Amino acid sequence: MKRYKITIEYDGTNYLGWQRQKDGNSIQKSIEKAVESFSGQKATVTGSGRTDAGVHALGQVAHFDLESEHTDYRVMMALNHYLKDKNIVILGCETVDEKFHARFSAKKRFYKYRILNKKQLSPLRKNRVWEVRKELNIEKMQNAADLLIGEHDFTSFRDSDCQAKSPIKSIDEISIYRKKDEIIFEISAKSFLHHMVRNIVGTLRDVGIGKTSIKSFQKILEAKDRTKAGVTAPACGLYFVRVGY
Amino acid sequence: MKRYKITIEYDGTNYLGWQRQKDGNSIQKSIEKAVESFSGQKATVTGSGRTDAGVHALGQVAHFDLESEHTDYRVMMALNHYLKDKNIVILGCETVDEKFHARFSAKKRFYKYRILNKKQLSPLRKNRVWEVRKELNIEKMQNAADLLIGEHDFTSFRDSDCQAKSPIKSIDEISIYRKKDEIIFEISAKSFLHHMVRNIVGTLRDVGIGKTSIKSFQKILEAKDRTKAGVTAPACGLYFVRVGY
Repeated sequence: MKRYKITIEYDGTNYLGWQRQKDGNSIQKSIEKAVESFSGQKATVTGSGRTDAGVHALGQVAHFDLESEHTDYRVMMALNHYLKDKNIVILGCETVDEKFHARFSAKKRFYKYRILNKKQLSPLRKNRVWEVRKELNIEKMQNAADLLIGEHDFTSFRDSDCQAKSPIKSIDEISIYRKKDEIIFEISAKSFLHHMVRNIVGTLRDVGIGKTSIKSFQKILEAKDRTKAGVTAPACGLYFVRVGY
Repeated sequence: MKRYKITIEYDGTNYLGWQRQKDGNSIQKSIEKAVESFSGQKATVTGSGRTDAGVHALGQVAHFDLESEHTDYRVMMALNHYLKDKNIVILGCETVDEKFHARFSAKKRFYKYRILNKKQLSPLRKNRVWEVRKELNIEKMQNAADLLIGEHDFTSFRDSDCQAKSPIKSIDEISIYRKKDEIIFEISAKSFLHHMVRNIVGTLRDVGIGKTSIKSFQKILEAKDRTKAGVTAPACGLYFVRVGY
């Protein structure tokens, strides 16, 4: 038995998300099908974390076990062959120790969120950014975001469907900066609650347009009440960038 | 009668190109329809230049005349309303003198070509780049490109369908540089022959992978024979960036 760790890029637009579903397309199912087509073996492909419908990945990580032995390069090329036209690409493959677990061994997860901040939409960035026409104040958003660093009860930024046992999470970093006509959010933590990044970005947007003050933002966090925070930012602006092990 | 100059971004993927066709979708026809829906007047929308099927624009320019008077902002917003879901966006609109002509007043046209240069494809950049897996040598490509600067007979890089009277053109600049995993070509000239940019990039690719030497590249230019040069680089990597007036 050999365990393979794969790194994956995908365009989440036409998927129901990472997680295998009874009906409809998921990234996980597509990769599991490719593994079976290539090896003839049914294997569970375990991701480092789920992504929601429409969310993209630049470096999702997963693992699976095969009884047959192959070179890493051959596994990557074979999977990419079967994933052709699926908007999923295996960027890398390596054989790992059986103690490695894509989800439980993960020490840090890195996400990126892209807002297009100008008056006009961008057809070339359709399904790649959240289009916010009102001008956003980066400094105010960063000041508010700084209040989230460290360990907190993130109930206000947690989806009602979230299945995590505890709402306590610890954010390591939120960095917000302009890149031409876009505003980029980089956010990292050991793990996140369901919709947590998108709910944070949605609420920071309100700070950026001046609708929510930094004081009010602090109160939202302390309220531990999802209804106090802003909208869930659209899935299409979110990218699962990489995992630290 | 008022003349409006518009600046346009579009995703060329699902279009037959800029130019109005008898059948099928063109950017020009889509904008002309939007002008008519908004103003009730039939107007010809004249572009600064044609783009082929699948070629994108970040700043195409066009003009049209209307008998009715509107503010520039209203024209832009109204056209964008009717162009919604067409993958075309009007980035700006301004009233111009009737002497202004999008095509004939153009002094310089700027194009960009994007090559993704790595082993794996990128689902998030599908239809946005030319995927070249073999490593490209930028220095060699730039040295070859430098031979094209100034006035030359570009027959070797001209499509057989090209309707221009003369194959003589003058290239102002070709700049080739790396941007993460992409190689970017920036090229500008007063005007170009049909497929000229894509044929140049296709032939420079051969230089980059070591298939064509710089000496051979010089001979290709001098041959004035399209069959001596390389392939036409795919449309999806080409961007019409802006026009100088």
